[in-house]
Amino acid sequence: MQQVGPSSTDDPSFSDFFLLHHLNATHRANVLPCAGLFRMRSTLYFYTCHLLCMGLGLACVVCVFWWNSQWRGGFAWDGSALQFNWHPVLMVTGMMVLYGNGAVLYRVPLTWGYNKLPWKLLHAAVMLLALLLSVIGLCAVFGNHNASNIPNLYSLHSWIGMITVVLFAMQWATGVAGFLLPCSPGSIRKLLKPQHVWLGGSFMSLGIASCISGINEKLFFVLKGNTNGSQPYSQHPPEALLGNSLGVLIVAFGMVVLKILSNQEWQRPENQPADVAYSPVLQEENQ
Amino acid sequence: MQQVGPSSTDDPSFSDFFLLHHLNATHRANVLPCAGLFRMRSTLYFYTCHLLCMGLGLACVVCVFWWNSQWRGGFAWDGSALQFNWHPVLMVTGMMVLYGNGAVLYRVPLTWGYNKLPWKLLHAAVMLLALLLSVIGLCAVFGNHNASNIPNLYSLHSWIGMITVVLFAMQWATGVAGFLLPCSPGSIRKLLKPQHVWLGGSFMSLGIASCISGINEKLFFVLKGNTNGSQPYSQHPPEALLGNSLGVLIVAFGMVVLKILSNQEWQRPENQPADVAYSPVLQEENQ
Repeated sequence: MQQVGPSSTDDPSFSDFFLLHHLNATHRANVLPCAGLFRMRSTLYFYTCHLLCMGLGLACVVCVFWWNSQWRGGFAWDGSALQFNWHPVLMVTGMMVLYGNGAVLYRVPLTWGYNKLPWKLLHAAVMLLALLLSVIGLCAVFGNHNASNIPNLYSLHSWIGMITVVLFAMQWATGVAGFLLPCSPGSIRKLLKPQHVWLGGSFMSLGIASCISGINEKLFFVLKGNTNGSQPYSQHPPEALLGNSLGVLIVAFGMVVLKILSNQEWQRPENQPADVAYSPVLQEENQ
Repeated sequence: MQQVGPSSTDDPSFSDFFLLHHLNATHRANVLPCAGLFRMRSTLYFYTCHLLCMGLGLACVVCVFWWNSQWRGGFAWDGSALQFNWHPVLMVTGMMVLYGNGAVLYRVPLTWGYNKLPWKLLHAAVMLLALLLSVIGLCAVFGNHNASNIPNLYSLHSWIGMITVVLFAMQWATGVAGFLLPCSPGSIRKLLKPQHVWLGGSFMSLGIASCISGINEKLFFVLKGNTNGSQPYSQHPPEALLGNSLGVLIVAFGMVVLKILSNQEWQRPENQPADVAYSPVLQEENQ
């Protein structure tokens, strides 16, 4: 049986760090003198992840825009293949990057000292923008398919993508009705919140699956290597490396978002149980 | 400002339910008389999700096996397309179903009353089996590609799949070294645990993305509709519906696993802070 005895407590910051892991965040400042050091480390770690999240998100947008503007011929809204090019750009920008950044908004410690309502409105606004871009992205592909007599919604990619966007739209509407409308009862909010958080994280996973399957499908479609002496996908032409790199960037972005969402230390602190039971005003601010 | 006043407390079970949500699980039994009712509901909800998880997992395995045995010609290990058929079966069974069930093992309340070590060993064993099936699944596709002179590792699906399996193997080795070897210090376990939990959930998302992109790619490859009067993918032939349904089942299974992993009520209870600081034996049992 392994012992954590006096030898491991020689370094007070080390032993305090592990003891702190087992204490509720709201009690730490009163219990241990090293709470400030722990909080500083945790905050620094959060902002490193948040910076990585924003950097990877920006890289995803630049990469998908560059691919479609420089390698796929650019953009139009005329039913042609150039209209299709809006699809990957808008889905990656909306359903992945904006969505992921909107999901981690409450985790930013700078927002914790203020009333939650403005951040709820910003969260809803970012998610609405993400949803609108996704819907326009779907319109782009439907318009291109209809103009070219290509059937819609037959591939697994399209099924998973549609399921993701439809569920996301329902989640947004339920979120606004449940968490923003003044008439929604606190009891409903309490019931909704765990489902909202779970589905929020799940949509990130569904978004990754939709993007990876879509990029993979597109690269197989366009890199056939039978025209203009171009190389097929299997011979690693530059466009294949660019598309695959975009996929890896999307996965890395999604993993960082899931890291931020999974860390309980970075959750916006809740009120004490007594506040919730006896102070509806405080409760309202934190739901 | 919305009030949670007397009207909402008329039903004691309802108000207790929401108050309980804000209390640490380990303190509930001493604080509120309705803790038993809450725990019963939470346990019932868990087992419903767990049953759904196992049912969906079984449906995934049956579906992928049926697809490859009845629609793709069955199985062999001779470098032919029949060898390839092991790939989807083993990846879905190993990297998704066994992996997902292994990940939620600690959440089963029946295990909480016992020493953690046997469950750690079972967790490691299930994950090792998942890893072995995944590696054999990769060997199946490499063998088929090499025998047919098809290049390896060029598609985005293969990149994401390889990243998932390699990271999973590293996670398994780190997990065994960090959590099972008697010589590993408790401080290292405390540092490793949040990363282990985060990566564990992330691999579920990467597994979904790998499976969806792989099934999508395979259906485009085989449903070309230019031989034997068979219908192309775009005309929704039965095999397309089967393959797409398998993808939807995989997504549903993954979402239920993520639901179980995300619910803090279902985490194996930790020791009290005092136990951790002063009772290394108990600490050892719970890491």
